[in-house]
Amino acid sequence: MRVSELGEFGLIEMLAGIVPQGGPEHRMLIAIGDDAAAWQGDGAAVLATTDALVEGVHFTPGTPWRELGWKALAVNLSDIAAMGGVPQYALVNLSLPGQTEVEDVARLYRGLADLANQHRVAVVGGNVTAAPAVMIAVTVIGRALGEGLLRRSAAARGDRVAVTGCLGAAAAGLGLLRGDIRLQSGSGEPLRKAHLQPRPRVAEGQALVRAGVRAAIDISDGLVADLSHVCAASRVGARVHVDAVPVHSQVREALGQKALELALSGGEDYELLFTAPDRVVKEAAGLLGAGCPVTVIGEVTEGTGVGLLAGDGRPYYIEGPGWDHFGKGE
Amino acid sequence: MRVSELGEFGLIEMLAGIVPQGGPEHRMLIAIGDDAAAWQGDGAAVLATTDALVEGVHFTPGTPWRELGWKALAVNLSDIAAMGGVPQYALVNLSLPGQTEVEDVARLYRGLADLANQHRVAVVGGNVTAAPAVMIAVTVIGRALGEGLLRRSAAARGDRVAVTGCLGAAAAGLGLLRGDIRLQSGSGEPLRKAHLQPRPRVAEGQALVRAGVRAAIDISDGLVADLSHVCAASRVGARVHVDAVPVHSQVREALGQKALELALSGGEDYELLFTAPDRVVKEAAGLLGAGCPVTVIGEVTEGTGVGLLAGDGRPYYIEGPGWDHFGKGE
Repeated sequence: MRVSELGEFGLIEMLAGIVPQGGPEHRMLIAIGDDAAAWQGDGAAVLATTDALVEGVHFTPGTPWRELGWKALAVNLSDIAAMGGVPQYALVNLSLPGQTEVEDVARLYRGLADLANQHRVAVVGGNVTAAPAVMIAVTVIGRALGEGLLRRSAAARGDRVAVTGCLGAAAAGLGLLRGDIRLQSGSGEPLRKAHLQPRPRVAEGQALVRAGVRAAIDISDGLVADLSHVCAASRVGARVHVDAVPVHSQVREALGQKALELALSGGEDYELLFTAPDRVVKEAAGLLGAGCPVTVIGEVTEGTGVGLLAGDGRPYYIEGPGWDHFGKGE
Repeated sequence: MRVSELGEFGLIEMLAGIVPQGGPEHRMLIAIGDDAAAWQGDGAAVLATTDALVEGVHFTPGTPWRELGWKALAVNLSDIAAMGGVPQYALVNLSLPGQTEVEDVARLYRGLADLANQHRVAVVGGNVTAAPAVMIAVTVIGRALGEGLLRRSAAARGDRVAVTGCLGAAAAGLGLLRGDIRLQSGSGEPLRKAHLQPRPRVAEGQALVRAGVRAAIDISDGLVADLSHVCAASRVGARVHVDAVPVHSQVREALGQKALELALSGGEDYELLFTAPDRVVKEAAGLLGAGCPVTVIGEVTEGTGVGLLAGDGRPYYIEGPGWDHFGKGE
């Protein structure tokens, strides 16, 4: 069987079964399968995560280098945010063709440095190597905030399902950049920026921990796909009222009916999707304030999988549930 | 200017100047420029390093998958060994074409798991993504052994220069695999294995710390190139007596005069190169015992750079000082 037939998630499950995931001396708290790994350090719990951007897969050759560097770090900070943690250290593994302009590589690192500075992340190491295509793999190490950690596996029946911010802008921005989407009016700049320069919800993830939230994931694959990951890890089901999903206003104006589809399955918004009892969600919304709206979009249920409901209460169907790196299930 | 003109080391220096390398809260002990980064943890010092293998650059498409997985982890464990540390956790970033056979990916992970098990390293996270070529970027996190850390910058005038084990086998193995080298007699298997399945000197690095050694590097780029890195970081020079260099016996038998060249500049032997006062080197040799010979090959001097001396005391010259990923200075 080929990797493209097994798919990304089947592959990860198989590989996790091969490697040693740690003995008592590793004091693991969260192993493979969440947004980041966690183990008990000498003081706080330690968090670590790694993610990569590959030319031709995650970005096209024309992508501005500065945004590329920003995004390579951002997707990793978002994973730490989804654990409610504090990012501290980053290591960068950069592969690129020898004919790349030095100034372009400097731009990439300046973009990465801008975001690192904003979050007080030290870039402590790295590696550069020749390669046929540009690829940036970043590892971020951080720590938990006190005792709290947000897990994919902690959703409980009766919880509300909620999201931070608005959805669909990153996917619309990608569509604009690819030429798949054309705007009737207005500037597409905010949408392009949502795709190229996502803002990881680091402070917001920490606020969720303080509010008492225990279950979260960041929206990278798409709302429905990522909620499915939470449901699978927590052995529960979920119901989403699609009319309640906070679609980015400009996406709704520009794309009408298609906007909801992008919000449900577009991915890469890097908002936080979390579940908690109603009063905890309200507490979280209060802590986050007006700068980061929190919207309840559904409930955690018995059973398995994610059900979508239209405004009239009937089932709502979408085409692509989300992103798989090897095209499986798209 | 293009990356290939600036070269790997010039590029790293430039990039290190762009990124934030940490404030007081990061408690950095060793920043960019050594085999691994180190910062003060809540208990022991924490070590972190990252390195990648890229298809067509570090290995040819026919390389056995199992050895590839082993080596991707080995080069990182060797960086931890060069700090005298204890490797504990690994994260794997794997990129590969969708048409790759699942069984081959499983083989890769089995090779990586074999080595991880030997060193009690937990593989705690990772990422798989589609890409035009196979690339494995591994990050290893570990801890220092007590107070000791081996640094590139700690070589002092008057120190002996010493190496563990024998040199040249990995480069000879690569030559055999590429068909550049042919053996007159005997099996090339030990040489091929030295290239494909290097054994990182983890316990040996820790023994060096216990013996009181403070300066070390692993031999990845080549003896002369790596000693030059130590000299530059320590602001000293070094003299190497080429007749004293422990050339791998099978390489010497098979290749005669060319064997010394491979031992001096071939690279990828992943032995430890260290400097220390004479009595500390003797102490280290005693601790390491017969299983891992220690050979004194020269001295740390005033000035800069590495000078090679032939048996008659005259300067000895080699063609390629070592490995640069972008071909600069080869």
